[in-house]
Amino acid sequence: MYRLPVALLAAAMASGVSAKAPVYNANISEAEVLAAQNAWCGALVAISKAGAEQGQDAARKLAGEVIDSAYGYNLGPVLFKPTLTTAPQTFRTTREGALAYFVGGDSNFPADKGFALNGWTACRAENAAIHINGDTATTMGNVMITGKDGKVTTVDKTWKFKRTDDGKLRIVVHHSSLPYSAP
Amino acid sequence: MYRLPVALLAAAMASGVSAKAPVYNANISEAEVLAAQNAWCGALVAISKAGAEQGQDAARKLAGEVIDSAYGYNLGPVLFKPTLTTAPQTFRTTREGALAYFVGGDSNFPADKGFALNGWTACRAENAAIHINGDTATTMGNVMITGKDGKVTTVDKTWKFKRTDDGKLRIVVHHSSLPYSAP
Amino acid sequence: MYRLPVALLAAAMASGVSAKAPVYNANISEAEVLAAQNAWCGALVAISKAGAEQGQDAARKLAGEVIDSAYGYNLGPVLFKPTLTTAPQTFRTTREGALAYFVGGDSNFPADKGFALNGWTACRAENAAIHINGDTATTMGNVMITGKDGKVTTVDKTWKFKRTDDGKLRIVVHHSSLPYSAP
Amino acid sequence: MYRLPVALLAAAMASGVSAKAPVYNANISEAEVLAAQNAWCGALVAISKAGAEQGQDAARKLAGEVIDSAYGYNLGPVLFKPTLTTAPQTFRTTREGALAYFVGGDSNFPADKGFALNGWTACRAENAAIHINGDTATTMGNVMITGKDGKVTTVDKTWKFKRTDDGKLRIVVHHSSLPYSAP
Repeated sequence: MYRLPVALLAAAMASGVSAKAPVYNANISEAEVLAAQNAWCGALVAISKAGAEQGQDAARKLAGEVIDSAYGYNLGPVLFKPTLTTAPQTFRTTREGALAYFVGGDSNFPADKGFALNGWTACRAENAAIHINGDTATTMGNVMITGKDGKVTTVDKTWKFKRTDDGKLRIVVHHSSLPYSAP
Repeated sequence: MYRLPVALLAAAMASGVSAKAPVYNANISEAEVLAAQNAWCGALVAISKAGAEQGQDAARKLAGEVIDSAYGYNLGPVLFKPTLTTAPQTFRTTREGALAYFVGGDSNFPADKGFALNGWTACRAENAAIHINGDTATTMGNVMITGKDGKVTTVDKTWKFKRTDDGKLRIVVHHSSLPYSAP
Repeated sequence: MYRLPVALLAAAMASGVSAKAPVYNANISEAEVLAAQNAWCGALVAISKAGAEQGQDAARKLAGEVIDSAYGYNLGPVLFKPTLTTAPQTFRTTREGALAYFVGGDSNFPADKGFALNGWTACRAENAAIHINGDTATTMGNVMITGKDGKVTTVDKTWKFKRTDDGKLRIVVHHSSLPYSAP
Repeated sequence: MYRLPVALLAAAMASGVSAKAPVYNANISEAEVLAAQNAWCGALVAISKAGAEQGQDAARKLAGEVIDSAYGYNLGPVLFKPTLTTAPQTFRTTREGALAYFVGGDSNFPADKGFALNGWTACRAENAAIHINGDTATTMGNVMITGKDGKVTTVDKTWKFKRTDDGKLRIVVHHSSLPYSAP
């Protein structure tokens, strides 16, 4: 049986010096969640700016890059209910449907005018509560988006992020809706 | 070194008889997800019926039991955005807020009239897509609720269920919204 | 459409004051993992002490309490390969088998002499690496146990802990083995 | 408010025809676990064969491919305690250490003779119990390996598999030990 020499062990314990074991931790931190929300907000404003300054094609190119890096369409269907979609195309479980929503111009989604092309100038999230669960996190709260006229639109939003093997947080669930207003 | 007698092993392999190892599997199945959705629908109709036939107190008692068995308020804040709530009480992360939404009569939530007291007679879910991820599952799609007049209200709904240690599936995220209608 | 008054929003953003959203985080931290390992070590020494000072019955009572609070037999079969067990009772997937290993005296496990009754006076873990994965964590490394004669026994040990709904970390996998020594 | 025409809805419900929602399910099935164990066994025999017929270089090349496709070193440190390693190189948390163990010939791991070069002709796993937990699964039981002389070596083995984004199951924990034999 293998035995550490007692004297050596006692010395090690006495010294309190111990090489720290490497920790592999795929869990998401609250800071990462907030950063991912801010990144979404920043991307929305950037796509708006690209559209206003360089046109719809530039906006589409940027939106495609954002979707590819910030959403989980590479994993499977994303549960995406954008703010302004209507039946029978309410849910955008494919990359094509998400891109059409953000920048329009897709004949397969004729109702889409391009949500990101509204000249948004600012965006921020305010969470009601956050669940962190290993390599996924879900947030619910409001997102406030400022238009070019300075008016602020508030939406109710649920996001679920998942860390993929490349370390990135990706949106795998996104439900956005306008606040209810009594008739 | 321990060695299985070769003859014995050969016989076992030849016979192909092997006691199956017990499997502990906490994963959620698609059937369980659909059953949990149907249970939610059934509970809504049952609360409506209790309210209509036995009054608000009976409805409140039943709603409390439903919340305690079908939602995860015992775990922490639930991410619940009901269909008809408005700021500053849009998000109902507490059990009290959920109960008030379903059956009203709580002076802390003065706008709540009791969503479940509308005489609903039928309810069914139709999923756009489902994510199953270990002991959690997220669904997105429509829920169609039939009123006493036969009119059907459709909502866009996201649910995340989590299996707790007692084996039950509980709702930990619930975002419900009326479909967008262009102004 | 609901709109936050712009002036109010601007003030809020300017002030940078925002109520922090409650975060429900079931993830295990490295500190919790180390604490759970230390708790296991402390329990082993405590059972030894109970056995030496108060006899096998007292040790069995304490060991039962330790198993009930620190192992996951309440969830299903635990994957437990103790250091000194032999076929055909190598794996102790039931609470009964674990208890017999630690304190002996169970005619269903006639080879068990009671590992915890060896007069252990100290115990500490030294991890080679740690995986943290949501509400579970797995460690691999050595555990050094000091006998009453001052000799230290080193074992190679893998533990997987899982947080249950009550917040506790429980051992759901435990593989312990003496270091290999070449013949 | 959006309303499905009642007649249409009634027809749909009556017809019972409903497009099935796509389900994205990353959970591991029992069949996948057993297949991954068989693949490990098959790889061990294949490396042995490559070594015997084509030499150590061919065995090393194959072993590297096996490690890259069946272990999770691409994710971080793997918790690997091979059957025959000794201190201070007991734990092989790096790809280099795993490769040295299987095929030897690495001056950084001078004690390694190449476990996979022993002329193994057959290998099979027999599980005591299995835990399945979302995209991970842990097994504990025996693995029986047949040498060229027909003698069977039994080891006690714990494996934890994790599905990576590419769909593959990879070993992230592997603790193997010879059965205890009383002195």
